[in-house]
Amino acid sequence: MIDDSATACPAPSGGEPPPATERRNVLRVRGDDITPAEDVLADEVPVALVYNGISHAVMMATPCDLEDFALGFSLTEDLIDHAGECYGIEIEAGPAGVAVHLDIASRAFAALKERRRSLAGRTGCGLCGVDSLDQVYRTLPQPAGTAILAGHAVRAALAALPERQALNQLTGATHAAAWCDLAGGLAVVREDVGRHNALDKVVGALARDRALRTGDGFVLVTSRVSVEMVQKAAMAGAAGIVGVSAPTAAAVRMAAGAGLVLLAFARGEKFVCYTGREKLSP
Amino acid sequence: MIDDSATACPAPSGGEPPPATERRNVLRVRGDDITPAEDVLADEVPVALVYNGISHAVMMATPCDLEDFALGFSLTEDLIDHAGECYGIEIEAGPAGVAVHLDIASRAFAALKERRRSLAGRTGCGLCGVDSLDQVYRTLPQPAGTAILAGHAVRAALAALPERQALNQLTGATHAAAWCDLAGGLAVVREDVGRHNALDKVVGALARDRALRTGDGFVLVTSRVSVEMVQKAAMAGAAGIVGVSAPTAAAVRMAAGAGLVLLAFARGEKFVCYTGREKLSP
Repeated sequence: MIDDSATACPAPSGGEPPPATERRNVLRVRGDDITPAEDVLADEVPVALVYNGISHAVMMATPCDLEDFALGFSLTEDLIDHAGECYGIEIEAGPAGVAVHLDIASRAFAALKERRRSLAGRTGCGLCGVDSLDQVYRTLPQPAGTAILAGHAVRAALAALPERQALNQLTGATHAAAWCDLAGGLAVVREDVGRHNALDKVVGALARDRALRTGDGFVLVTSRVSVEMVQKAAMAGAAGIVGVSAPTAAAVRMAAGAGLVLLAFARGEKFVCYTGREKLSP
Repeated sequence: MIDDSATACPAPSGGEPPPATERRNVLRVRGDDITPAEDVLADEVPVALVYNGISHAVMMATPCDLEDFALGFSLTEDLIDHAGECYGIEIEAGPAGVAVHLDIASRAFAALKERRRSLAGRTGCGLCGVDSLDQVYRTLPQPAGTAILAGHAVRAALAALPERQALNQLTGATHAAAWCDLAGGLAVVREDVGRHNALDKVVGALARDRALRTGDGFVLVTSRVSVEMVQKAAMAGAAGIVGVSAPTAAAVRMAAGAGLVLLAFARGEKFVCYTGREKLSP
């Protein structure tokens, strides 16, 4: 669980990232019927996360809420223990993409360098900083509280989410992640072409507001639920994770081990409970 | 473009990967109505790609068609020039995941070591083997042919795809990628929880059958079209890429630069043409 008791990260400074959307002329085709039209597309740009001057990771991400993204990624990937270990974030936009410079505590930087030394000469790929099989699964914290997830809260959050997905309404191309309180209220919503990025942005936004809680809320995602999503939800101290689409078997095993409620295929009045039925109420 | 003129990769040998699906007891919830049921889930396991004994990348993937995956990834990520540079593939399944051992030509291995040396002490993340912004975009080959994509072929491929998605019919959790001929016939279909993996599996299957063509087919994916998907389609020599969901702006720019037709939101009789209208016929 992320410790949020220390000082929250100060507000970032720096340049402007590129816009998150782009207009293009397209042809809409329906059978033989071809109509010129204008379309709004979500953009993705390479984003490099640079810790105390060292480029650690490059990901394609939607260029909005990048401070949230950088802080959330640092927390859910266990690069810093709490938001207070991040002293500052600066955004530097250039023609090749966006560099997000994080100034982190010497303890965290020493741990990062140690982690990188053990990977010397190797290249992680697909999984963050992982290059051999025994590094894939981290030990995850158990939710601290005994929160009960109510079906009506899940349905309320589901019903409220679409109108908070401004970018997706424009583009039809972005995932959303939300932090929901136990009544189903949407505390934070973030969007990105990458579902992991959207969730990292949520965690970063919570941490910047010193609002990371221990088990008094749940994560809602518009995507499938895969192992990385469960890992990130557990690192944020969520009581559960709810996906509108399918979970993977590995995600269900991981959620069971981490004591998380996992609900999926959540649409309208319906959902399927995969783990944590003892923490679920109508 | 991948050169497929050399000897195709020999058939792999080695152990059995874990099953691609898992049955679990679940609760189906609809309002206050709760029904116990059994569900079939798609699994994902860590898969390490090991080149001449060196672990290069670990990804979560659905454990089926892993030889295709390993060969396709090696081709689309430009680690080998053609299938003949892969002398053998062995699958080694263990408790932590699956290692896929590739025996590659000394030329390719020397290039891989050189690439890794330039990344010394750094960890790529999210993008394969990339740790700084100027490494993100590769120069992509232009399609060799002057193939015309016909709307009726796109619609035929779309209509035929669902019944070839056996894993998705069971689980509702997997993406599919297909290589389609210019009449819309589905030459190869592969599935995976990861859309990139599904496309790599298609490319690997084509290469193993010495069937990689230059511009005489197109790629159809059940996902959104992001830059990595365009990169992989271009590396496979496709004339175009068709997605059932949205493209990103960056993917459209890349497809335009690489001379690929990009169609998206392809459903039923409809699609939207983002690039290559001059290569599109009814």
